[in-house]
Amino acid sequence: MRVPMTISDFLDRAELGFAASPGVIDEPSQPAAPVPASTYGRLGERVRAWQAGLDALGVGEGERVAVVSHNSARLLELLFAVPMSGRICVPVNFRLKAEEIEYVVRQSGASVVLVDPEVRDAVADIKAEHRFVLGEQTESELMRFGVEPRPWSSPDEDATATINYTSGTTARPKGVQLTHRNIWVNGLTFGLHTRAWERDVYLHTLPMFHCNGWGMPFVMAGLGVKQVVLRKVDGAEILRRVDEHGVTMMCGAPAVWNAVLDAAAGWEGEVPGRDRVRIVCAGAPPPSRMIQRVEEELGWEFTQIYGLTETSPVLTFNRTRPEDEGLPAQERARKLSRAGLPALGVKLRVAGSGEVLARSNVVLDGYWEKPQETAAVLEGGWFHTGDGGSIDEADGHLTISDRKKDVIITGGENVSSIEVEDTIFSHPAVAEVAVIGVPDAKWGETIKALVVLAEAAEVSETEIIAYCKQRIAGYKAPTSVEFRDAIPRTATGKVQKFKLREPYWEGRGRGVN
Amino acid sequence: MRVPMTISDFLDRAELGFAASPGVIDEPSQPAAPVPASTYGRLGERVRAWQAGLDALGVGEGERVAVVSHNSARLLELLFAVPMSGRICVPVNFRLKAEEIEYVVRQSGASVVLVDPEVRDAVADIKAEHRFVLGEQTESELMRFGVEPRPWSSPDEDATATINYTSGTTARPKGVQLTHRNIWVNGLTFGLHTRAWERDVYLHTLPMFHCNGWGMPFVMAGLGVKQVVLRKVDGAEILRRVDEHGVTMMCGAPAVWNAVLDAAAGWEGEVPGRDRVRIVCAGAPPPSRMIQRVEEELGWEFTQIYGLTETSPVLTFNRTRPEDEGLPAQERARKLSRAGLPALGVKLRVAGSGEVLARSNVVLDGYWEKPQETAAVLEGGWFHTGDGGSIDEADGHLTISDRKKDVIITGGENVSSIEVEDTIFSHPAVAEVAVIGVPDAKWGETIKALVVLAEAAEVSETEIIAYCKQRIAGYKAPTSVEFRDAIPRTATGKVQKFKLREPYWEGRGRGVN
Repeated sequence: MRVPMTISDFLDRAELGFAASPGVIDEPSQPAAPVPASTYGRLGERVRAWQAGLDALGVGEGERVAVVSHNSARLLELLFAVPMSGRICVPVNFRLKAEEIEYVVRQSGASVVLVDPEVRDAVADIKAEHRFVLGEQTESELMRFGVEPRPWSSPDEDATATINYTSGTTARPKGVQLTHRNIWVNGLTFGLHTRAWERDVYLHTLPMFHCNGWGMPFVMAGLGVKQVVLRKVDGAEILRRVDEHGVTMMCGAPAVWNAVLDAAAGWEGEVPGRDRVRIVCAGAPPPSRMIQRVEEELGWEFTQIYGLTETSPVLTFNRTRPEDEGLPAQERARKLSRAGLPALGVKLRVAGSGEVLARSNVVLDGYWEKPQETAAVLEGGWFHTGDGGSIDEADGHLTISDRKKDVIITGGENVSSIEVEDTIFSHPAVAEVAVIGVPDAKWGETIKALVVLAEAAEVSETEIIAYCKQRIAGYKAPTSVEFRDAIPRTATGKVQKFKLREPYWEGRGRGVN
Repeated sequence: MRVPMTISDFLDRAELGFAASPGVIDEPSQPAAPVPASTYGRLGERVRAWQAGLDALGVGEGERVAVVSHNSARLLELLFAVPMSGRICVPVNFRLKAEEIEYVVRQSGASVVLVDPEVRDAVADIKAEHRFVLGEQTESELMRFGVEPRPWSSPDEDATATINYTSGTTARPKGVQLTHRNIWVNGLTFGLHTRAWERDVYLHTLPMFHCNGWGMPFVMAGLGVKQVVLRKVDGAEILRRVDEHGVTMMCGAPAVWNAVLDAAAGWEGEVPGRDRVRIVCAGAPPPSRMIQRVEEELGWEFTQIYGLTETSPVLTFNRTRPEDEGLPAQERARKLSRAGLPALGVKLRVAGSGEVLARSNVVLDGYWEKPQETAAVLEGGWFHTGDGGSIDEADGHLTISDRKKDVIITGGENVSSIEVEDTIFSHPAVAEVAVIGVPDAKWGETIKALVVLAEAAEVSETEIIAYCKQRIAGYKAPTSVEFRDAIPRTATGKVQKFKLREPYWEGRGRGVN
């Protein structure tokens, strides 16, 4: 028997087996009234209320519903409600500028836009058929409690469930279409390889707009795990929540764990969660010193993963192997900083060019209305990660050694260096520009612009940074600008970024930047 | 991207990530030379040697390869080698009589039959195009080491991977076709819900011919878990292996755990595996007293599951819930004796008749060359388990209260009561017969025959038992015979088995029998 693998499987099991168990604990301090702490039974009711509301608006199957929000119970609910009714959820990065959000809404063709109260003013001019501010307005004007929603007419595991926009090699973000099957397989393998179970307590330290919080909202529900919403990353606040809720599991970029380590240094008494918490880290490869500190100073188990929005996201996992248990802490940490072993069902290979290719059911269906880009990234039946790497013959572990695409990962956010270059280049005083990632203790990488001024033109570092902040999200602006006489190029005129990056990364033993 | 979910995914990951790790430890004492203790790298080589051997024999894709064997490394290898090359593996119960094995080989149309040396003589007359005794003969005459096998021409997740014969409502066993997708999903959910990981050590206390050892050979390989083969269930031997290999996980019917409990009572020193081993139990619902003893006397964690060969097999899991942790041991054990909560992706409902129905990707594709039986069991798009039960509204847990099909589960073996009735009825002295399961401390259930003699005929209990043992597998023969004047029937002439069973099961608080 074949039945479609859909997101419903996760919520159905939560409602059946954990109806009276704690479900989602909303962020207490936020501009909208928090959703009262709810069971999984209540989560199901609220999901159906959203669906009945969308029915009443006349939003059809296949239509896109964009949600621009910090982490919140409502965003989590919509990640179920929208795809489970055959519609497509478009979670949008709330840190984007209004023009960038407008692009995502327009390119996805969303007929409904739901925004966090905090970004209400910033996106006031964005056009969509229906527009709501999450909170009191959605509760009174959109959601319909107790009304049975129209069921999805023909559930299909290959239907698109979500579109997550990601910065890639081009200036404009592309919409990554993930199917129900993509998300289902990612959820099961993620749960399997992290050994998630009903006794876990999950804290959402990861923004849910990032590849649907790596699929955690789904699989944690399916396993009956209490989910605690965290609206904004703050090291001390994370420690307080770990303590208050008995948190056992979290995901995030290295910047999150750096913030926690900083907070732990000033924490009074024993840091909570020792020998109980396990964290999953991805984004920029973490310095092995950080991994060692997580284990020593926090006593938390560290798992490194590697993936992309295009891969739902998990391709590889790396947890200390039994045979490495006896190694010196530093050596163990170094091994843990590798991307890891492919998840069950993931095939990886390294192309002649050194690029890492992947084949798996977690690989995206395509980029939304970008057939050419889709064909390019899936050329030859393999997904092209854009990252350079190697696979260890002894233990099959992948190491990412070079990011081929011009993406800088700063504080867990992907930034297209080309997008930043375009912005800076639009300044009349700039003749040439190259944007690179340079190491940063707090953010993993930070953005540096190398600028060649136009003849007789003058502009200061501060001016260029301010100029960017007016035009693109703050985190995409460079944090430093260096003026140069020229930018080295190849004979064919290509900028050799690796050469530009080299002096900043020297002695770090790894070429990722 | 869609890639087929196939059994290869499990071995591929084992070979990639655990090439040098312990893979399969064969049974040391057996008639054939044991396969030398091997790594997962070596397992891959041996699997390809089997495949190249089948290539050389000219066994095509889709052809059936029957394996009649006790647990052995070779059987485990064939569970990979045959389906991974697009062929179909038919693991056969080695306890069946020659005629029964002959039926399975004939009905499945197997072109290759591989038999354990121990059953060599018993099945000497079975006809098939190719016939090998597992061990020295297969190593020298069939397997081709170092020869690259022909790859499966078009891997398909919906292709049949295995056919497992099961006794059902009819006298003749039916071949349950499980697809690669069935097995893949069963493997992932089984691993997920039992929290299996690379640090586990798995002991094969369950016969691998039983629904492919519940899929354990696959998922344990995929997770890099050391697998220890046990040829024959023996309580003391199980304890010795648990000690010797640091075993952490086992599966089996209640009879297995009863044997272990018996052995533990006479064990010198501390029983091995306390607070380390977790066991998964299925088959006849276990007495809650047994569960309590497993936890108290062995200190092993107990998980109950429910499923059928037709469901790959796992439908539900039951592990003590956090909120039940504080209950008295007896009450906790009682709750654990329920079938449990559906696995992720499994939908259950109870029909008006009280029968438990299931929908899931673990449900069989069909019965081999039995379109009518297939249509009947999948009527209305739901799999009909044949078992009666109820679902607890509070926590979604299934309880099996009545086995609708005339199946007796004795020592983990399914026995069709109709088959036994047919056999007894063929005795000239028998006018009428009804076969039922009655409670048994050791086997869970044991087989009882109620017999009405033909006029003036005479036959003893011992004679009837001996008569059966000559015709069907020994475990299918009744262990007791009662002579009656009549067998009660309904107005329409149907035997009311539940009425026959009633007096034997009184006071057991559960109607399963």
